[in-house]
Amino acid sequence: FRFAEVQRHGVGAERIWAIRGDRVYDITEWIPSHPGGEVILRAAGGLIDPYWKIFTIHQKQDVYDILEQYFIGVVDPRDLVDGHVPADRVEDPFKNDPHRDPRLSPHSDRPCNSETPASELVTFITPNSVFYVRNHLWVPPDDGDSHKITVELYDGTTKDYTLEDLRKTFQSHKITATLQCSGNRRKHMTLGARSTNGLQWDVGAIGTAEWTGVRLRDVLRDAGLDVEDLPEDTKHAQFVGEEAYGASIPIEKAVDKRGDVLLAYEMNGEPLPRDHGAPVRVIVPGHVAARSVKWVNKIIMSDEESTSQWQRRDYKCFGPNEGSKPDWEKARSIQEMPVQSAITSVKEFSSHEPEARSLIRVYGLEEDSIALQGYAFSGGGREIIRVDVSADNGHTWHQAELTNSDAKGHKSWAWKQWTLVMPKRLAGRWFIVKAIDEAYNCQPDSYDPTYNFRGNLTTAWHR
Amino acid sequence: FRFAEVQRHGVGAERIWAIRGDRVYDITEWIPSHPGGEVILRAAGGLIDPYWKIFTIHQKQDVYDILEQYFIGVVDPRDLVDGHVPADRVEDPFKNDPHRDPRLSPHSDRPCNSETPASELVTFITPNSVFYVRNHLWVPPDDGDSHKITVELYDGTTKDYTLEDLRKTFQSHKITATLQCSGNRRKHMTLGARSTNGLQWDVGAIGTAEWTGVRLRDVLRDAGLDVEDLPEDTKHAQFVGEEAYGASIPIEKAVDKRGDVLLAYEMNGEPLPRDHGAPVRVIVPGHVAARSVKWVNKIIMSDEESTSQWQRRDYKCFGPNEGSKPDWEKARSIQEMPVQSAITSVKEFSSHEPEARSLIRVYGLEEDSIALQGYAFSGGGREIIRVDVSADNGHTWHQAELTNSDAKGHKSWAWKQWTLVMPKRLAGRWFIVKAIDEAYNCQPDSYDPTYNFRGNLTTAWHR
Repeated sequence: FRFAEVQRHGVGAERIWAIRGDRVYDITEWIPSHPGGEVILRAAGGLIDPYWKIFTIHQKQDVYDILEQYFIGVVDPRDLVDGHVPADRVEDPFKNDPHRDPRLSPHSDRPCNSETPASELVTFITPNSVFYVRNHLWVPPDDGDSHKITVELYDGTTKDYTLEDLRKTFQSHKITATLQCSGNRRKHMTLGARSTNGLQWDVGAIGTAEWTGVRLRDVLRDAGLDVEDLPEDTKHAQFVGEEAYGASIPIEKAVDKRGDVLLAYEMNGEPLPRDHGAPVRVIVPGHVAARSVKWVNKIIMSDEESTSQWQRRDYKCFGPNEGSKPDWEKARSIQEMPVQSAITSVKEFSSHEPEARSLIRVYGLEEDSIALQGYAFSGGGREIIRVDVSADNGHTWHQAELTNSDAKGHKSWAWKQWTLVMPKRLAGRWFIVKAIDEAYNCQPDSYDPTYNFRGNLTTAWHR
Repeated sequence: FRFAEVQRHGVGAERIWAIRGDRVYDITEWIPSHPGGEVILRAAGGLIDPYWKIFTIHQKQDVYDILEQYFIGVVDPRDLVDGHVPADRVEDPFKNDPHRDPRLSPHSDRPCNSETPASELVTFITPNSVFYVRNHLWVPPDDGDSHKITVELYDGTTKDYTLEDLRKTFQSHKITATLQCSGNRRKHMTLGARSTNGLQWDVGAIGTAEWTGVRLRDVLRDAGLDVEDLPEDTKHAQFVGEEAYGASIPIEKAVDKRGDVLLAYEMNGEPLPRDHGAPVRVIVPGHVAARSVKWVNKIIMSDEESTSQWQRRDYKCFGPNEGSKPDWEKARSIQEMPVQSAITSVKEFSSHEPEARSLIRVYGLEEDSIALQGYAFSGGGREIIRVDVSADNGHTWHQAELTNSDAKGHKSWAWKQWTLVMPKRLAGRWFIVKAIDEAYNCQPDSYDPTYNFRGNLTTAWHR
């Protein structure tokens, strides 16, 4: 087939074709069975290869075998360069991604993964413009109030809501919640233990915002779910984003009155920015941010977790010995986060500097000093109750001052900012921080014992 | 006053007197204000001193000052030996304590604190006879079905229930829950860091039982509490035991449908043993056992925590630097427990021994081996998802096999038993265990950074 002919079998055509390498497939019959849903149509009338580079879950024999069933012929050699159709003939799905604030530190561009610099992490609320961006795919268009969300119950019945419906039908709520990527501080595990597989985030894959939206619980009840007496088969709430990302949370969290799960359309009092899920995203406070699905358009009650690679693979954690081919099925999906903390600012000043005067007033320090700042956070709404800082490699410890803040929500969904000022003469070469949450969970001392090849949940003491 | 005259001012007298040292006090007016409630009557017509040795919270100037206000005179020297009334003239409150199984390892006799030997910790259910005993005072008499519990709401209204009422009025439920003392493994912190203040428990201040009782939620609702929409001032559920022990839990836990808090009258299918709270005790699954108040006779809705020393002092934890005079007010009461694990059995087998045959069948081992067993547990119903064992001082790790068990309850309130069999040639001098719960919380590597002078929450890796 000539490439032009394949292109005529795109979205809207009676038969949908796609190319992998130099081979042409008629995937029409497969589309309804595709586990990833209609995102498959991105490849309609074009190339599969660039998508399978992103959706790596396809890179295995089972998947190749499925595709081969739909083989119908090969591409005309006149349209091939080095044996395959050139990638520039495919529309770039990232071409409409928004511009990003130059203060963000990029780790990858397509998809965008960009980190908040430590200097912007010292306020309780992280400004939208510098909030870390962790996208798995491209940013879909913002369709505003007409954006549609379909809620599907376990028995298959569905109810559709536009964003406008959500605003009009349900009471709005505000929740202050910290979002943190499971890969936050991965760089430290790489440096402290050994090489890890994933974006090498420093301390900035975390941020805190006030989210406004409607309660998922209210929407599910309206859609027909008995939230007080859950049906036997309804065990997980699966979310799908407009760009095809998918994840799920246990149904108990989704319907918990005190769980504060929102369908959020505002971030810090402004409409959601496109990078953060415009026009509407899920906010699952206390859970790894990967479950707070952006651009959500489907919410499905299921007896199983989302089948996406982000639920079944990427966001899991393993023993230090389990290597790079672990038993994925056996490991638990990351949901609630363990306790975490980091140092975000270290400032020295002499007692003669004007900046020191207010600190002298507060702390009574009359000598050259060091002021440390940082954050501490735990999952599941478990409040941070203590932050210990050492300036002599863990031999002695000081308790940092925790900053009070006006967080909204039934539990402690937001980090604590902390400060410690100490005389410079007490400080050695390193500072160490560790935090304790209200269940007295603490952080591991060192990186090796929590090493996992994915570099997830790096919570060893930050030095 | 002669001692005989003081004795006439005991329980039932118009004026209540008591002696401290050689001084006599008329405490009649103070009784209604006593923060510890009517336990004060234990000293009526007798000596205060032995009780203040038990209730150490009294050993401070504020309390002495209160008592001095009620001074009325001194004891006649004819009744004094070495300047005070001899202790044998006081009734022994412990004289009716039950007999204990000789397999328990005692730490103290009055009150009884006795630990389950490791050899009895290798079954999922811990038998009642060898379940660890952690009493703070004496064991009160078992008054059976006529035992009365008073529920008091924040507005002061009360409703009384006999145990018989509870059985007849409310549905019974069964919950499998592990109880663990905050001092479990304290001995290891003492050995691994430095001296701690408290009973030097080894691995046996923990056990698991199936508890039968009625839901506290149901009883509170019946008593008039709006459990779905809690009154503003109702923040804690305080419990008082017949012997005067007191503790509290956050009201959200008390009324949580999935929190499974019981008023329990059976333990492993038998009536509660006297040492474990007969005829009825509170079971607060997922929380430190100190909140599962035995011999409960009062349940009080309050805007503050229990004022007992066991809530405001003993069951708290501190930074490694906070010393023996910490800021008690600032520290959080221990409620949910952090993740914990221990090794309870290490057995060597030669492949020739008959006992090894079944292991060879299961694990395919054809050489001299070592079988390790132990438990792992986390608070808040967080399930144990992985147990890592090292036989070479933490350089390499193996995942233990977690034993499935038929635990009852909305969350994972019970420990996991684990097993690991490894070739003997891989084993060094030490074995280390650490566990991970479903929020991927892990245990600290070492004792020093979690040291606290009370030796609470010793969760560093067990070696």
